[in-house]
Formats: sequence, C-alpha cells, structure tokens
Amino acid sequence: MLTRIDHIGIACFDLDKTVEFYRATYGFEVFHSEINEEQGVREAMLKINETSDGGASYLQLLEPTREDSAVGKWLAKNGEGVHHIAFGTADVDGDAADIREKGVRVLYDEPRTGSMGSRITFLHPKDCHGVLTELVTSNPEH
Amino acid sequence: MLTRIDHIGIACFDLDKTVEFYRATYGFEVFHSEINEEQGVREAMLKINETSDGGASYLQLLEPTREDSAVGKWLAKNGEGVHHIAFGTADVDGDAADIREKGVRVLYDEPRTGSMGSRITFLHPKDCHGVLTELVTSNPEH
Repeated sequence: MLTRIDHIGIACFDLDKTVEFYRATYGFEVFHSEINEEQGVREAMLKINETSDGGASYLQLLEPTREDSAVGKWLAKNGEGVHHIAFGTADVDGDAADIREKGVRVLYDEPRTGSMGSRITFLHPKDCHGVLTELVTSNPEH
Repeated sequence: MLTRIDHIGIACFDLDKTVEFYRATYGFEVFHSEINEEQGVREAMLKINETSDGGASYLQLLEPTREDSAVGKWLAKNGEGVHHIAFGTADVDGDAADIREKGVRVLYDEPRTGSMGSRITFLHPKDCHGVLTELVTSNPEH
C-alpha cells in the first residue's frame, strides 16, 4: 500500500546551482547527497516534511552524470523540470507485483537501489497518464 | 516559511478516467472535488498522507474547463503529466513578498483562491529551474 508522497524528482543541468536556488529562495537544506552510478545521476535530497506513516517527503534534485542516462536523455529533450514523482510503501515488491497484474508496465524485473539505500522501481508513464511514477521502500537505517 | 509538500498538480484530459486510474491502481480516493472558474479547471484532490506541520499532501488532478485556460494551453503543448508542485505555508502573503524581493517573479499581485478555499500564488517556472511552483495557505475550515 502506498502511504506517502516520498519525493518529487526534479532534473537539472547543474546540481550545485539548483541546490543553491532552493536554499536561497526557500531555506531548504540538503539532507543527503550521493552519486548513483546505475541510474547515472548525481543527486541531492532536501527533506521538506515528515509524514504520517513515519517517513518523510523530499525534493530529489537530479543531475545526469552521463548524457546517455535516462535523466540525461530526458533533460536533453525537455529541459529542466519535474522528472518523476515517487510514492512510499513498506512493500515495493508486493505493490509492484499487484500493479503489474493490473496491466501497468513496471520497468524493472526486480527493484533496484535508490536514494539512501532504498529499493525502487518505476511505472511506465504512458500507463500512468503521462507521469513517470516511482515506488520506494526506504532503507530503515536511514 | 514553507513547511510541507502540499500537492503535486497533474494535468489530464479526462478527470473521471484519471481519478479512476488512481483509485484502481493505487487505492487513492477523492477527498474533495470542485470547479475553479477563475483558474479554468475541474479538479479532484486525493489525500495521500498527513504532514508534520498539521497539514496534508495531496495529488491534485486537473482537467481544463476551457482550452484557453493556463492548464488547457499547457496540456495542448505538453500532453498529460505533472503541471506544477505546491508548497504549504502559514503565510502565503509574507513568503510571496520575501521571494519576490529575491528576484523570483510571483505571478499574482495578490493571492487568489485555490482548492478548498486556500489562498495561492505561483512562481514563474523560468525563475525556478523549470518548475512551475505554487505557494498555498490552507483554509483552516478544511
């Protein structure tokens, strides 16, 4: 069951400048940053609020580390903006299986590693009214 | 001060079909629906979680009521997808004034009426790294 908006993924050309925009304009601070080589992104997580399921909602700022990554190709086509939205669940495997049975394409056979050691998968935007949608189970150590 | 992700605004061609997609796929239910003539949209709010500032996070599904509305023009250009993101604040007037002083264009001189009697304004996406950004102060009666 999806119990929170986990994050909004925002693609940008320059992570440092975009982090500085969010800090200077709204006072949002970087909670965590990392490079995810598999996804081909350098990212910063800005925690905005905690959520009623014991988790939190973040902005995830994403800069591609290579042009042929999914985010790199998306940016080249669309420019900066909202790349995806993510819902949090305690059971990404079960929810992904349920959703696949309903006929929505799930992009990975098995969940992969997302921010802060989470396990993630994505749903095809064409099956979700144009919205690239991620499912996330947090790593309890974070 | 912005204290939560208030909602993600998603533009769609057919509100009823899109509501049904979110219900059937994820179990999300409509919390509130209304027509906002000023904004030229018919909308449904799906509450996803409550937030640590005493508010909540929603998906806001938006169908234009006329082609020349902002959302109607956006849909004609972009197709369905994430139209804007919104941050909640107790003081939309004060925050909008502060943000305007920092050089970010605020689209309304005074906040207008948003979902559920809230007061809202928007920031120019070109000043926000491509993200149309809304500020919301909820109506305490909702």
